[in-house]
Amino acid sequence: MSEAHPPAKKKQKKRKRPDPRLPRGFRDLPPGDLVLRREMIRRVCEVYERYGFTPLETPAVEYVETLGKFLPEADQPDGGIFAWRYDDGEWVALRYDLTAPLSRYVAKNFQELGMPFRRYQTGPVWRLEKPEPGRYREFVQLDIDIVGAGSVLADAEVIDVLAHAMEALEIPRGSYLVCVNHRRVLNGLLERAAVPPEKTLPVLRALDKLDRLGLDGVRALLGPGRRDQGSAAGEGDFTPGADLAPEQIETLLAFLAAPAEGRRGYLEAVRPLVEGTPDGDAGLAELAELDAILDERGLGTDRVVFNPTVVRGLGYYTGAVVEVVLTFEVEEGAERRRFGSVAGGGRYDDLIARFTGQKVPATGASIGVDRLLAALKALGKVETDTAGKVPVLVTTMDRSLRREYQAWADELRAAGIATELYCGSGNVGKQFKYADRRGFTVAVVAGGDEMSRGEVSLKDLRLGKELSRSEELAADRKQWLEQLPGQFSVPRERLVDGVREVLARYGR
Amino acid sequence: MSEAHPPAKKKQKKRKRPDPRLPRGFRDLPPGDLVLRREMIRRVCEVYERYGFTPLETPAVEYVETLGKFLPEADQPDGGIFAWRYDDGEWVALRYDLTAPLSRYVAKNFQELGMPFRRYQTGPVWRLEKPEPGRYREFVQLDIDIVGAGSVLADAEVIDVLAHAMEALEIPRGSYLVCVNHRRVLNGLLERAAVPPEKTLPVLRALDKLDRLGLDGVRALLGPGRRDQGSAAGEGDFTPGADLAPEQIETLLAFLAAPAEGRRGYLEAVRPLVEGTPDGDAGLAELAELDAILDERGLGTDRVVFNPTVVRGLGYYTGAVVEVVLTFEVEEGAERRRFGSVAGGGRYDDLIARFTGQKVPATGASIGVDRLLAALKALGKVETDTAGKVPVLVTTMDRSLRREYQAWADELRAAGIATELYCGSGNVGKQFKYADRRGFTVAVVAGGDEMSRGEVSLKDLRLGKELSRSEELAADRKQWLEQLPGQFSVPRERLVDGVREVLARYGR
Repeated sequence: MSEAHPPAKKKQKKRKRPDPRLPRGFRDLPPGDLVLRREMIRRVCEVYERYGFTPLETPAVEYVETLGKFLPEADQPDGGIFAWRYDDGEWVALRYDLTAPLSRYVAKNFQELGMPFRRYQTGPVWRLEKPEPGRYREFVQLDIDIVGAGSVLADAEVIDVLAHAMEALEIPRGSYLVCVNHRRVLNGLLERAAVPPEKTLPVLRALDKLDRLGLDGVRALLGPGRRDQGSAAGEGDFTPGADLAPEQIETLLAFLAAPAEGRRGYLEAVRPLVEGTPDGDAGLAELAELDAILDERGLGTDRVVFNPTVVRGLGYYTGAVVEVVLTFEVEEGAERRRFGSVAGGGRYDDLIARFTGQKVPATGASIGVDRLLAALKALGKVETDTAGKVPVLVTTMDRSLRREYQAWADELRAAGIATELYCGSGNVGKQFKYADRRGFTVAVVAGGDEMSRGEVSLKDLRLGKELSRSEELAADRKQWLEQLPGQFSVPRERLVDGVREVLARYGR
Repeated sequence: MSEAHPPAKKKQKKRKRPDPRLPRGFRDLPPGDLVLRREMIRRVCEVYERYGFTPLETPAVEYVETLGKFLPEADQPDGGIFAWRYDDGEWVALRYDLTAPLSRYVAKNFQELGMPFRRYQTGPVWRLEKPEPGRYREFVQLDIDIVGAGSVLADAEVIDVLAHAMEALEIPRGSYLVCVNHRRVLNGLLERAAVPPEKTLPVLRALDKLDRLGLDGVRALLGPGRRDQGSAAGEGDFTPGADLAPEQIETLLAFLAAPAEGRRGYLEAVRPLVEGTPDGDAGLAELAELDAILDERGLGTDRVVFNPTVVRGLGYYTGAVVEVVLTFEVEEGAERRRFGSVAGGGRYDDLIARFTGQKVPATGASIGVDRLLAALKALGKVETDTAGKVPVLVTTMDRSLRREYQAWADELRAAGIATELYCGSGNVGKQFKYADRRGFTVAVVAGGDEMSRGEVSLKDLRLGKELSRSEELAADRKQWLEQLPGQFSVPRERLVDGVREVLARYGR
């Protein structure tokens, strides 16, 4: 056990001060993002609940054996997970998704749970991946799953929920697409291309990279392998390929080129490429039934399409696979590109049988919360200006008036107005500087003079900024200030009303 | 690095199926608890926000060096934390509280943050403690802190927030008490009792155990040590004592016996025990000022008391320490006992200086969310019957009516009524059994007959249970069923109204 835990420090004496840094790939989230994320999760969970999903929470830590090795990185030495030896001598790890823990939960409680079992779960997951800009080792997922239902109707429910979740976030129809493909259709394709079983996953993962690497990149990964673009520091990393023959590769690439937007078009184009293989036929039949159910629900191809390039990198899928992509473009560095995938999932009928030996069909999807939040910001669908800011600061200039200051804060809070009572040691100037820096809208200010008149002073901290932000406004500065004075006094008993008036100037 | 990660499995072939179990000390949380917990957190955060606290999220993983060794278990081999070697070769760990990460955050962003800085944070923390019934290795905390304010006013804000948080949860005044003590008063006491510096923490931790071990237990821990009560399996564990002399021990125990309920009473009783020591005098002065501020806020001794037995086990406190206790009794096994502590905190002026070398005063508190949820359940303050249950199931008996079933579910969901569309493969009987097991209130049922009449059937799934639960109701069973039929038909277009009528019977 000793090697898995930090050695007790002996020489505590003249220790250097620790650096207040974070391990690589981790980050802190500020108030604005958190307030927006909370609202986002609330809206999506409301949709989940309307569809009859109820919440579940599993712990962050599971046995490694329980989680299984399904990540694309599973063949690397660390397997893509954070693992350590537990106090019982076995290996545990932080969960890398919410699906493996759900499977463990269902297997553990199978006798008590009624089937089908619907649940949603939200929480962080952890992956030991190479950190990239905007890509972290801890990120939040928001999952739904239906366990114990093998019907295509269940897959349709998941697709329906995803579409409604996007619309609950005010992502307009046409700006998102739920893209569907089928693992068994892909298996049929692989059979046609005579891909041997041990190459199935490497080939699927190569196909999955079309978005990122383009057709030539995928061709290289299916063939001899591919070297990353080098940097000033030297040559890029080499990824070994699947070593397929050229005619095998062309069979696979022809599939990727099938129509990506319609549903009937997909079925017609793909049929000749997989027909006659048992998996291919079964997959196509399920997709045809899914198409009919989606029609019955009024989910047209403006919302749900079949797309041959949807593959999904995780090893456990067995049926329909889905991905929600945002179709609008965003600036990324110098170029504009489609925002891309914000959710994914599919059917995984064998995951619970790992534990029980008994097949329990299951289907679900996972929304990448952080990606989606970035998307909403890019779409301008969220209010980033005042999110996470406190509207009112009660300044505390005069120690002898402490009782009053507390009473004002108390009154504002009781009226439901978020209020900070200044507790620092700064003088007037420092307190205003602080108010400015932290973005309050109103400062309540009063010294002995106002008090003796039975008044309090209110200072509008945003007005100056708004006036200096716009030239047009600034031209009428004087007139504005007459209408909306930057600072004014109200009788003590009108404190709450006065504060509300200033907040109302900014729609708060 | 290899020793810190699980070895790649070579012999994958005939592997045994994994057991779907959880590592010791971890648990799953079912829907009912989660719905209640979410509502609890929402209400408390609303109070936090009203007091001008904004949210922050730090990651689960931090460098061990960053977290520091402040846990009561810090002197044990594993230090009470889950740690492993990171891919940069350093030790990282799961956070054991939210205070150490906050200190790291403030030190890291000191230049950008305006002071005082108020934040709240909620999330899981992890401790490698001996699991006990109701005590887990992963649990949720809900923290507030004010950083950069050394004033007693800041401590009073924290206390005020805690009292308001309890009341927002409908814990009546009188059923909770915020208990305050002061580390410097305790230091003064230790100086009086001539406790040498290296024994400070062991002595404080012994005093902290009064609640659990009683006066004799604490006396033993201050003296030669204490052996746990043995079990059938053998002798209990021995905890070494602080080896103080009898007169030292009696000085300390006299302090614990000071009045615990009032505030003036505490000050008068404690003064002679610590007066004249620099720490004792400073601590008493701060408590006297705190008493005045609490009076100004109208926080009487029905809500906030000074209590000499509040010590807090964490090593980093430097000033006022607080604990919120629930004073009502609960059954625990055969005995009734006071529910006890649900939140704690205090002032920790040196924690940020660990990083920066510069003193940054700070004060805060942490609510133990799971303990508090247990308390609310014991108080009957939360609705545990229908929490996390879905009200409506649309059964799907007849495959040829699939389009209709989907349309009904769609309509109910659009009306905001959480509805499950049955996606399993069970027949009529199985679907009703399922409905019963999962606690739906209404089942929507219809076959070809109803359809041809343009009707749907609604089945009240709770009525039978309510009638069989109460003998009184059962006596009038027939009359009840006339008034509230267990199953009835409504015209297709009155589906939503009909479902609402049944739900209204149960106040949903």
